[in-house]
Amino acid sequence: MTNTKSYNSYSSEDFANLEKRHRVHFINSLSGYKSANLIGTVNHNGDTNLSIVSSVVHLGADPALVAFINRPHAVERHTLDNILATSAYTINQVSADFFEDAHHTSARYPADVSEFDQTELTPYYTQFIAPYVEQSRIKMGVELREKIDLKINGTILVIGEIVEVLCAENLLQADGKLDLVAAGTVAVSGLDEYHTADSLGRLAYAKPKKT
Amino acid sequence: MTNTKSYNSYSSEDFANLEKRHRVHFINSLSGYKSANLIGTVNHNGDTNLSIVSSVVHLGADPALVAFINRPHAVERHTLDNILATSAYTINQVSADFFEDAHHTSARYPADVSEFDQTELTPYYTQFIAPYVEQSRIKMGVELREKIDLKINGTILVIGEIVEVLCAENLLQADGKLDLVAAGTVAVSGLDEYHTADSLGRLAYAKPKKT
Repeated sequence: MTNTKSYNSYSSEDFANLEKRHRVHFINSLSGYKSANLIGTVNHNGDTNLSIVSSVVHLGADPALVAFINRPHAVERHTLDNILATSAYTINQVSADFFEDAHHTSARYPADVSEFDQTELTPYYTQFIAPYVEQSRIKMGVELREKIDLKINGTILVIGEIVEVLCAENLLQADGKLDLVAAGTVAVSGLDEYHTADSLGRLAYAKPKKT
Repeated sequence: MTNTKSYNSYSSEDFANLEKRHRVHFINSLSGYKSANLIGTVNHNGDTNLSIVSSVVHLGADPALVAFINRPHAVERHTLDNILATSAYTINQVSADFFEDAHHTSARYPADVSEFDQTELTPYYTQFIAPYVEQSRIKMGVELREKIDLKINGTILVIGEIVEVLCAENLLQADGKLDLVAAGTVAVSGLDEYHTADSLGRLAYAKPKKT
């Protein structure tokens, strides 16, 4: 580790010398704030599953697509198995009033144990097959469209189309944007830190400055 | 749009009937808070480019991998061209004290106009070929490893390996995590809203409850 001006500088060799857990915390912090979502699924036996995921990303608005990264040997393997079996899942934004229960869904329970039974979180159903999280203010029903194996490290990119959205009243702004601060939505940094957010405001569509 | 209990409910048909801009704002809000990063690149003429991206995601810690989604016909096309030409780019977390300049990099400038010249942001160089953003507290030098075309909507998944990290002093915690709140790092919601964050605390690694 070298001190360059007021920066600490780390090279690939420095990463390699870090203790494994230290490295995981460090590298996980580098990408900035991450989304916090619960993915709800069900298998053909009717066993429900709920798993917190911090890698959900917007992929496109038309068609409405969303993606997440599934780790190779993660707890979310139950989630992925269920998604592959039913092609259906829900993605539910985590709010500050239930973030601890949301975090607890990362514990390694057997496939036939539902995280809904191990937390205060409750399932909510529409005609869509997968369970929503009732407590979540912004939630979407998603149909699997594509699963891409990322050979570089064994992770899996799961792409789905949003087919239903449920959101609490009063979050929708005039131009279509949802108010995530009013929803109490949290963000994640690193592996385990949760954050509420304040607004710095919305900025106008950027146009080139006149020269 | 149907009101179910206290939720507003939207189907795929409802999305299809939304005015285009309204739909973009709406769908973009659904995935939760997004990371805010500036990607710095340079081409073989020495022209630098800087572009704000809200889709950077952590992919893995060993090897240290990070990914982002490049839109099909976006401003970041210059960014992608430069990455493909040099295999090098920097990813720089956006802090609250320069988020307006960061947002301005999304304006459509010609390829030979550097966003460094159109904002107060300044390039910072190490031995790495691509320019960092001096003002950013957490920044990484990345080498392109893989580019995956997502045929479903024409977006491109760009995967790179982190080969250098520069971070401001005092952000590193004892276990390797970086303090993003102390860094002033911002998050994005939807297309254009920026957020500072507060910490709800760090949670212990989750273990199954005893029955």
